[in-house]
Amino acid sequence: MSDITRLCVAHRYSEASIHNGVVYLGGMVPEGDATDIQGQTADVLAQVDAHLAACGSDKSRILRVQVFLAHIADIAGMNEVWDAWVAPGHAPPRATVQAALADPAWRIEMVVTAAQR
Amino acid sequence: MSDITRLCVAHRYSEASIHNGVVYLGGMVPEGDATDIQGQTADVLAQVDAHLAACGSDKSRILRVQVFLAHIADIAGMNEVWDAWVAPGHAPPRATVQAALADPAWRIEMVVTAAQR
Amino acid sequence: MSDITRLCVAHRYSEASIHNGVVYLGGMVPEGDATDIQGQTADVLAQVDAHLAACGSDKSRILRVQVFLAHIADIAGMNEVWDAWVAPGHAPPRATVQAALADPAWRIEMVVTAAQR
Repeated sequence: MSDITRLCVAHRYSEASIHNGVVYLGGMVPEGDATDIQGQTADVLAQVDAHLAACGSDKSRILRVQVFLAHIADIAGMNEVWDAWVAPGHAPPRATVQAALADPAWRIEMVVTAAQR
Repeated sequence: MSDITRLCVAHRYSEASIHNGVVYLGGMVPEGDATDIQGQTADVLAQVDAHLAACGSDKSRILRVQVFLAHIADIAGMNEVWDAWVAPGHAPPRATVQAALADPAWRIEMVVTAAQR
Repeated sequence: MSDITRLCVAHRYSEASIHNGVVYLGGMVPEGDATDIQGQTADVLAQVDAHLAACGSDKSRILRVQVFLAHIADIAGMNEVWDAWVAPGHAPPRATVQAALADPAWRIEMVVTAAQR
């Protein structure tokens, strides 16, 4: 039995790997119909919640978040949704930079590292 | 004796560090003559294979890959080479964004985190 | 008592998290008045030193550094300051790419992962 667990393994990539109590999520991008940054951020954060739950973790146990925004000016709108979502007292270290994403309709991609419970 | 092992330590950076069973590679960029994305991706993945081997790991044990493409439209060409390389059943979480790289001739840079065997 | 320690927890984010002997810093950006890359790099590296010290680590124990430069041409100037700062024999793996940052005055953002002593 392997000491690495993977979540939703497809041919190209998986959604998460777990090793030694640490959860490494892949880049989460919007999957719904939202076109604005608030809606896309909520979409991505809901995926983060779901994947962390599937990995035996949750948003109070995030170790770091890397945020890529297609338009850095979206950071204020992203923060609105983030601030309402983040677990009080457990806000993780974060880094936010601008980068064009694989689909021009996507405004945000988040890469989360967390600890299992 | 240190609990951190480094690979190919130069003055400015090393190629990898290992700590507590986790391998952190630096950003791998093309070293050969390839100018297209397929050739440069193969070049970078060969370096990933070699460095992981030197660190007591391999491509079936990757925990996450961050891919930076100078031109996001290269993602399809990168995926062609990736899909033929990735270890079936062990595809890692991945995040791919666009970013200009240190040498304008480089089309791809990959940052790999893996587990030792 | 939690197995995750956080440094400087604000509502939106913290400066660092520590889990299982690994220190995850957030994105460090310039806080002083420097406008050139040398001054901003020195500013960011001083913050890295301070935060690593607060987390029971130091620059000889860095596992990986991700560098984002607003202007990739600044890499030579960043390297001047980096080369004078890095712990001889302990240079970490590093990846440097270009990305626009949240404040247009910032030329550099660094994301550091390290091991506690």
